[in-house]
Amino acid sequence: MKFNAADLSSMAQRYRATFVNSLSGYKSANLVGTVDAQGRHNLCIVNSVFHLGAHPPLLGMILRPHTVRRDTLENILLKECYTLNHVNQAIVAQAHQTSARYDAEESEFEKTGLTPQPCDVIPAPYVLESKLKLAMKLVEIKPIEINDTQLVIGQIEQVIVEDNAISEDGFVDLQQLDEVAIVGLDGYYTATQIHRYEYAKPDKPPLIKK
Amino acid sequence: MKFNAADLSSMAQRYRATFVNSLSGYKSANLVGTVDAQGRHNLCIVNSVFHLGAHPPLLGMILRPHTVRRDTLENILLKECYTLNHVNQAIVAQAHQTSARYDAEESEFEKTGLTPQPCDVIPAPYVLESKLKLAMKLVEIKPIEINDTQLVIGQIEQVIVEDNAISEDGFVDLQQLDEVAIVGLDGYYTATQIHRYEYAKPDKPPLIKK
Repeated sequence: MKFNAADLSSMAQRYRATFVNSLSGYKSANLVGTVDAQGRHNLCIVNSVFHLGAHPPLLGMILRPHTVRRDTLENILLKECYTLNHVNQAIVAQAHQTSARYDAEESEFEKTGLTPQPCDVIPAPYVLESKLKLAMKLVEIKPIEINDTQLVIGQIEQVIVEDNAISEDGFVDLQQLDEVAIVGLDGYYTATQIHRYEYAKPDKPPLIKK
Repeated sequence: MKFNAADLSSMAQRYRATFVNSLSGYKSANLVGTVDAQGRHNLCIVNSVFHLGAHPPLLGMILRPHTVRRDTLENILLKECYTLNHVNQAIVAQAHQTSARYDAEESEFEKTGLTPQPCDVIPAPYVLESKLKLAMKLVEIKPIEINDTQLVIGQIEQVIVEDNAISEDGFVDLQQLDEVAIVGLDGYYTATQIHRYEYAKPDKPPLIKK
């Protein structure tokens, strides 16, 4: 089936949002933890976190100022830090529920039954139930003018991860942590490793890593 | 296990690259198709494509100017277009092999056995074997100064997808297309849907979409 630009443009808004959100491929599932000026916790799920670089260790994340994530963006600007907490299968329902439009004075932790865990390097709460958690220091926010979104760039200040998931070479097998991936806005998936491959070389066929 | 900034900084370079690349969560797997000034095809796998917005339909992608992907970036700048082709299980070995440092005059299609397919809206090749393909028009390139990478923003001009994977509401079930996700630099995963959830509301528990 073929859709051209005019077909996309003429889709009903909700259909288009659902369709286009499926087109980038599998997405990461992270809970962003922040605190506001009164010290109140905020938590929201994002599917837009991506790797930006290993040295310095940087992650990017797209936030939409005009959605429920406004609280998150304001808190990040205020405190210049946030946590990222990978979503696993045991907490997928609660994680999705953090996308509801709770009032600013309501804590998504309390509302969804997730547990805030203090972080010893930044003033932002981890999610206790997450098996891979990152403390992030805000580096910069780049406005994406074309659609009025914000690229939030953060540097990793701390990683907490169950060590049985880390291979000898530093690879973290997210399947060992029961992690989930997202498709579109609301589809949650578990994943199963096929292979790891050796670094590809022009004069060799693809080799499966033992 | 806990790693602080100093621990990350003191890791051996390859270990750190492998470790930090695992920390964003599951990643999308796409083949970028371009042509150069002589009309020669180029193809390379990227794990950095992300959703940027549905209307206009925009995707972002991070490219590193100082890696094998230089050809890709130059071609995108030259022709102001590229294709994105989701990777499925049947072509995962070939897709990984496109990351080898072939010479500019060598076609990764020929070298890996993937098949170029003409696109009728832009001068860039699709990958015939891919089950979800996008023709992209370059919108802009934003330099990320902090680590000398480039954010390539493109608008979707055409979508080709097997229609049995599209739900009534526009959702595309990537599992139906046998698509793969990536962890780190070299880990490939298949995915299995758990649930889709209804739009979350503050006064209701999370509801599974029927």
